[in-house]
Amino acid sequence: MTENQNIDAVAAAAAAASRPFARTSPRDRGAALVAVADALDATAPELIDIAMRETGLAQARLTGELRRTSWQLRLFADTIVDGAYLDARIDDADPEYVIGPRPDLRRMLEPVGPVLNFAASNFPFAFSVAGGDSAAALAAGCPVVVKAHSGHPELSRRTAEVVAGALREAGMPEGVFQLISGQQNGVDLLKDERIRAGAFTGSTHVGRMLADIAASREVPIPFYGELGSVNPVYATYADDALLDGFVASVSGSAGQLCTKPGFLFVPDGVDLNAVSGAAASVDEHRLLNPGIGRAFSQRRDDVLGADGVTVLSQGEVRVDDAGQTYATPTVVTVDVDTLTQNREALLEESFGPLSVIVRYADRAALPALHTELFPGNLTSTLHARAEELADESLAPLVEALAETSGRVLFGGWPTGVSVTPAMQHGGPYPATTSDATSVGTAAITRFLRGVSYQGAPQALLPAPLQDANPWDVPQTRSAAGRSTTWGSFAR
Amino acid sequence: MTENQNIDAVAAAAAAASRPFARTSPRDRGAALVAVADALDATAPELIDIAMRETGLAQARLTGELRRTSWQLRLFADTIVDGAYLDARIDDADPEYVIGPRPDLRRMLEPVGPVLNFAASNFPFAFSVAGGDSAAALAAGCPVVVKAHSGHPELSRRTAEVVAGALREAGMPEGVFQLISGQQNGVDLLKDERIRAGAFTGSTHVGRMLADIAASREVPIPFYGELGSVNPVYATYADDALLDGFVASVSGSAGQLCTKPGFLFVPDGVDLNAVSGAAASVDEHRLLNPGIGRAFSQRRDDVLGADGVTVLSQGEVRVDDAGQTYATPTVVTVDVDTLTQNREALLEESFGPLSVIVRYADRAALPALHTELFPGNLTSTLHARAEELADESLAPLVEALAETSGRVLFGGWPTGVSVTPAMQHGGPYPATTSDATSVGTAAITRFLRGVSYQGAPQALLPAPLQDANPWDVPQTRSAAGRSTTWGSFAR
Repeated sequence: MTENQNIDAVAAAAAAASRPFARTSPRDRGAALVAVADALDATAPELIDIAMRETGLAQARLTGELRRTSWQLRLFADTIVDGAYLDARIDDADPEYVIGPRPDLRRMLEPVGPVLNFAASNFPFAFSVAGGDSAAALAAGCPVVVKAHSGHPELSRRTAEVVAGALREAGMPEGVFQLISGQQNGVDLLKDERIRAGAFTGSTHVGRMLADIAASREVPIPFYGELGSVNPVYATYADDALLDGFVASVSGSAGQLCTKPGFLFVPDGVDLNAVSGAAASVDEHRLLNPGIGRAFSQRRDDVLGADGVTVLSQGEVRVDDAGQTYATPTVVTVDVDTLTQNREALLEESFGPLSVIVRYADRAALPALHTELFPGNLTSTLHARAEELADESLAPLVEALAETSGRVLFGGWPTGVSVTPAMQHGGPYPATTSDATSVGTAAITRFLRGVSYQGAPQALLPAPLQDANPWDVPQTRSAAGRSTTWGSFAR
Repeated sequence: MTENQNIDAVAAAAAAASRPFARTSPRDRGAALVAVADALDATAPELIDIAMRETGLAQARLTGELRRTSWQLRLFADTIVDGAYLDARIDDADPEYVIGPRPDLRRMLEPVGPVLNFAASNFPFAFSVAGGDSAAALAAGCPVVVKAHSGHPELSRRTAEVVAGALREAGMPEGVFQLISGQQNGVDLLKDERIRAGAFTGSTHVGRMLADIAASREVPIPFYGELGSVNPVYATYADDALLDGFVASVSGSAGQLCTKPGFLFVPDGVDLNAVSGAAASVDEHRLLNPGIGRAFSQRRDDVLGADGVTVLSQGEVRVDDAGQTYATPTVVTVDVDTLTQNREALLEESFGPLSVIVRYADRAALPALHTELFPGNLTSTLHARAEELADESLAPLVEALAETSGRVLFGGWPTGVSVTPAMQHGGPYPATTSDATSVGTAAITRFLRGVSYQGAPQALLPAPLQDANPWDVPQTRSAAGRSTTWGSFAR
C-alpha cells in the first residue's frame, strides 16, 4: 500500500465506505479485526525488522509491542461481538407516562463516520497505524485514515498494507482503511468536512494546534488528543529497591513514553545514593529520531542549568554521524522550594531518559502542592508502606491525584499500561484534550453517537433495536407504567 | 437568592463545593434531587404566575413544563440511585495476562467538577435554572452555576432560591448551586479555570461564540451546546389530518421550540388547501421577548420576499406599545428547485411560527437532497402509509435521516420531546456542538470522566470500587485467565 496523497480522493473513499461499514454486524466486524490481528502476527518478523531500523527501539520491546497490538485487536473484537457496546435501549410506549403519553422510543450508538488518526512516533505499533485509535474506530464501525508518523515511514506503509489487505479479505468495504503522510496533508484532511473525528498521540504543541483546527472548523469535530504528561510519583519512603524501579521506569525505551515518571517526590533526608549506580548500569539507547534527540538535549541542558539543581546522575548524550542521538539516564534532585521557584525550567515534560527527584519536608502539604503544580496528567502514583495504606491518612493526597489524573497507581510504575476493560489512559488537559481514554475497551465509545428512533416500524429499525433482535444484543427495556414511582426511594 | 455578580467568588464557591459534593452517595444526591422536585411542585402556582408574565407563554403549557421539570429530577434521581451510571469496572489481577501480568485495575466515572449552564429563553423551566442540564450535572455530582436568561430574570431568581434552598436542607454542600446574570459575567466565568464544563441551549450564533471560547481557553473544556435545528419532515402523502398536525406543531408555543418542523416535504400536486384554514384557527401568540420578535419579523420578511415562494398562510405580526411582538402562523410553499436555489433566504432556522412546505417530484431523490441540505438536526421525521413502512423501500431515506439527526420519527411531530432513557436530543452540528444528548437519562454521562485505580488498597478506593461494595452498585468484573480466548469466536 502506498499512501494516497490526493486528500480529496482519500476523503471521498472514506466517506463512501462509511455507510456500508456502519451496516456490518459486530460479529463480522469483530472477525475482521481478528483477521487483521492474525495478519500482523504472521508478518511479525518482517515488521519488527523494519521497526528496529527506523526507530532504534530494541527487538524485545518491539516484539512485546506488536503482540500487544494484535491482542488489542482481539480484545476489541471480543468487546463488540455481543453488541453490549451499542447500549441498545428500548422504551415501551406508555400512554400513562406521567409527563404525557410516551411513544415507543429506541436508542443505540452508531458510528460517527470517517476518523483521521495521527500516529505517534514512540510506539510504532501500539499507537501507530494499527494501534489503539485505529482499532477503536474500526471496532466502532468507522472508516479510518491514518496520517503516518514521519519517524517510521516504511513500517507505516507495510503495516497499512497488511491491515488493509486483511480487512479486504474479510469482506470489509473498500476505503475502510487508508494511509496518508505529510503534515500538510494531515492538516488539510482534518479540515475536510467528510472527516468526523480526529485522534492523536504526540506533543502538546502539535496536539493543541490540531485540536484548535478541529474546533475551529465550520463544522467542529471531536478531537481525541493525547498530549503531555509528567506523571508525578509520591513516595513516603525510598529504599534501594524503590529507586532501582524508578530508574528502570525512567530509562525504559529511553524514557520516550507518555507515562514516564518525570517527578519522584521523596521525604527530605532519604538516601538517594542508589540512583547513580542504577543509572550507570543502563546502556546507552538511541532516541527515536534526530528531532527528538535535539529537543531532549535542550531540555536536559535547561534542567541541568537551573538554579538549585543537584545532579544524581549526569548521564551522557552523544550524536552520531547520521545525526541520531544516544543517551543514558540523567537524574537530578531539588527541594520543593527550588521546584516551585523554577517552574519554567523544571516543570515541562522531558521526552527522554531524564527525571527529577523532589525532596519534601511536609507530607501534609503534598495534596495542595500536587493540585497546584500538576493539574492534568495521564497518571499519578503513590508509594507507601502497607501500614500507611491501611488507614485513611493518605486519603486527601489520593483524592487530589484522582482529580487531576486518569489513572492513580498504588505502588508499581506508570510506564506499564495494560489494555483491559478498566484501563483509563486519558486525564485532564494537557494530558488529553478530552476526558476519554485512548487505551482499553472504553476507547471505542469515543467514535459512537446516540440515535433515537421514535415510533419506528420493525422493518426500518436497525437490527439491534428490533424486537426480533437478530444480532442477539443486550437490550435494556424501560417498561410502561413505571413513571409514577420515580423518586419514591427517597420517601 | 440574588445572583452573585462577583464572578471570582462564584467560581471559588463552586470549586469549594466540588469535592464534598463528589463524595455524596448516589442515594443521598438522588434524595436531594427529589427534594428539589418537591420544592418546585410546592411553589408551582407562584412560579407559573411569574413565568406567564415574563415569557408570554400560556398557563397550560407552563404547568406541563414545570411538571416535566420536576419529574425529570425524579427520573434522574431514580437513574443514579443504583449506581449503574458509575460504570464500575473491576479487572482482577491476572499474572497470566497474555500481553504481560495485569495489575488489579478498577475504573469508575467521577464528576468533572463545576459546570456552567447557560439557560434558554424558550423553556423557562425545562431548559432553564432547574432544567435538564442542571439536573444532569447535579445528578453527576457536579456543582452548578446557572447563567440566567435575561428573558425571565425574576423567575430565574425565584427558581434558584427554591433549588438552592432544597439542596441545602437536603444536606448538600454550600455553593453547589448558584445563579449569575449578564452576558459578560457568563463569558468571564466560562473562561475561569475552575469551571470544568459548559452547557447551553440557544441560538447558533451565541452558542458557537461560547463553544469557541470554551475550546480556546488555556485549558479547553467540553461545551455541550444545543444550537440550531430545522427538523425536516418528509411525507409520502398529505391529507387534511396530516396538514392540521403540521400546523399545530409549527404554531405550538408560537413556534419557539428547537424541534419545530421548519420544512415539510410533500409530493408534488397534493392539495395544500387545509393549511390556510388550520393556520387561520390559531390564535395570536406573544413571542418570548422583543428581540426574538424583531428577529422573527425579519426572517419572515426574508422568506416571504424570496423568489418562487407561494404563500399558503400569510399570518400576522403585530408589535404592542411595550415592544412585544404577537404573531399568527405563516406557512409558504416552494418546489425543490426554488429551495435549492434560494438557500440563503430559505434554509436558515426561523424561530417563531413559520414553516416552509416543499413540493417534490422524485421521491428517490430525497435521501441525497436531505443529506445535502440538512447535515445536522435534532430530529427528522418520516410520514408514510403503513403499507409503505412495511417494506424497505424507504430504507435509504431512513439511513440518511439517521446519519444527520439525533432522533428519527415515524409519524407524529418532533415538538414532543419525552424525557426517557432512550431519548436522544442532540445531533450533528449545528444541532449540537457535541454528539451527546441534553434530554433523557443519557445526558448525565456528559459530566463524568473515567478514573482508574491500579493496585489500590481497599481503604483508599472510592466506595463503588471496593470489594465490600458499600453502596451496592453494579460492578462489572473482568476475571483473570480469560485473555487467551480473545477473538476465538471468529475461529
